Amino acid sequence: MIEKLDRVLVIGLGLIGGSFASGIKRQKLANHVVGFDLNIQECKLGIELGVIDEYSNDLLQAASEADLIMLAVPVKATEAILSDLVSVIKPTAIITDVGSTKMNIIEAARHVFGEIPHHFVPGHPIAGAEKSGVTAAKSDLFERHKVILTPLTNTSELAVKTVAFLWESLGADVLEMTPERHDEVLAATSHLPHILAFSLVDTLAHEAQNKEIFRYAAGGFRDFTRIAASDPVMWHDICHANKEAILDQLDQFTEGLTKLRQAIDQGDSQTLLGIFTRARVAREYFSTLLTGTAYELTPVNQKEAKPLQKKEAD
Amino acid sequence: MIEKLDRVLVIGLGLIGGSFASGIKRQKLANHVVGFDLNIQECKLGIELGVIDEYSNDLLQAASEADLIMLAVPVKATEAILSDLVSVIKPTAIITDVGSTKMNIIEAARHVFGEIPHHFVPGHPIAGAEKSGVTAAKSDLFERHKVILTPLTNTSELAVKTVAFLWESLGADVLEMTPERHDEVLAATSHLPHILAFSLVDTLAHEAQNKEIFRYAAGGFRDFTRIAASDPVMWHDICHANKEAILDQLDQFTEGLTKLRQAIDQGDSQTLLGIFTRARVAREYFSTLLTGTAYELTPVNQKEAKPLQKKEAD
Repeated sequence: MIEKLDRVLVIGLGLIGGSFASGIKRQKLANHVVGFDLNIQECKLGIELGVIDEYSNDLLQAASEADLIMLAVPVKATEAILSDLVSVIKPTAIITDVGSTKMNIIEAARHVFGEIPHHFVPGHPIAGAEKSGVTAAKSDLFERHKVILTPLTNTSELAVKTVAFLWESLGADVLEMTPERHDEVLAATSHLPHILAFSLVDTLAHEAQNKEIFRYAAGGFRDFTRIAASDPVMWHDICHANKEAILDQLDQFTEGLTKLRQAIDQGDSQTLLGIFTRARVAREYFSTLLTGTAYELTPVNQKEAKPLQKKEAD
Repeated sequence: MIEKLDRVLVIGLGLIGGSFASGIKRQKLANHVVGFDLNIQECKLGIELGVIDEYSNDLLQAASEADLIMLAVPVKATEAILSDLVSVIKPTAIITDVGSTKMNIIEAARHVFGEIPHHFVPGHPIAGAEKSGVTAAKSDLFERHKVILTPLTNTSELAVKTVAFLWESLGADVLEMTPERHDEVLAATSHLPHILAFSLVDTLAHEAQNKEIFRYAAGGFRDFTRIAASDPVMWHDICHANKEAILDQLDQFTEGLTKLRQAIDQGDSQTLLGIFTRARVAREYFSTLLTGTAYELTPVNQKEAKPLQKKEAD
């Protein structure tokens, strides 16, 4: 039985932190949802919008009283914040985060704590981040989205179950994997596509005369390059935080692209049709996963695999 | 003054040919809209659905009577069809097409006619082709889409104006450029992104264990890879038809990606932020083109540039 939490402290009231706070408050999963943000205006807006119950301008005081601390800050700020809090956090308090890379968050925690605390549950909600700020927060942001938790062997099972319970209460599908696997998977399915999109748009736009060509681009190009509109600083940080896995994926991709280039150059129809057909089949398989006709992996708090809810592609 | 056409023959009643026929019929731009398709069922469906007025199962007879012939067939079929028709087409008949590459269509016409006829107007509507068949045809498919015409220096101005008038009557924005420029522009904005998407999905799916990673992919990946669901045979043909321009764009892209890889490897923040920021700015510029806040190039039949209609991103 997971007990109701008394005080949840959300550090960083951006889209993700704000939406988490808002969901916790709306679902009455804690007696007090407390917000902290370096930008005090975001805190005040958070109160006005009903995202949090209260805010603090004394982070150490707020952290010392919290039963669960959610770090919803840029990945590279994590170590500094943990250093500030290490001496005041209750020994029973659960710490979790939403960083889009996990190995480096664990490394940061190791620097600060010496050994990763049993009650630290690294997490990552796979949810869009194209908007930002507390005004973009919404309590249902995580509905039908995946949240990956990456506990270590010494992580408290109750702490994992508590964090999973919160996310599931917000409508998310919670899954577990090792932090190494998380970083590999995200390098392949998120970081690499973002890097390709950034690189393509930058290459095309590089010469002044080329700007004109965007006039002729159609819907496929728009879809393909949408992710190149993401925050440059965040992606700079991700490239640093997940460097090895990204380089590995990039090299595998380049190897595949080199083969494809050779097939085009040599007019090798069999290879071309092979690549295009396999890709189409894989893309269709991916589509079935998203439209709910495939089976999901076992969620943390449930014993049996179940079909995903049927959902619209968004 | 462009006179009303008597008989328009549309060869190939797929999505593009069917939609063109349907629009011409609905807008009453010709007295008779005649369809021809190797699949007679598509012709019969075309009648039932009101896409065409009549169909022919004698292509030479239909071609000999036509005042305008629209070739809406796979690019590589163009030369064979032109060869069949060359001896029967009226000297005054306008011939146009919808092929997604233009240099090779012109080459095909040159093979057949010796010299490109004055009344041959190569064209390319930039409209999606994810669905196929006459049942997918709709008369408003080309509304607010671009159609690129690539006349040669000896092409009849009246023929160009007539073809442009038809497309504009269907709601398209008609633009002119050289066939060389068309093939370069399409290689950059359409062919290269498709090749990257196919290659990425194929590379990721290559090992059995990797199929699982698609489970964790989010919306960005879905958008980025949507175009990898396109028809493999069509893309095989495009890679053949526009080989040189595609290889050129692919090499420019690879050069850019190599620099980006090096910057990630070396932790070169300045280069990374430069690439990501330039790409974001270019992507935003591209967005303004699509949402109508930028100015369009001069359409063929109008003297002054005008703002695009405000439209929703679709």
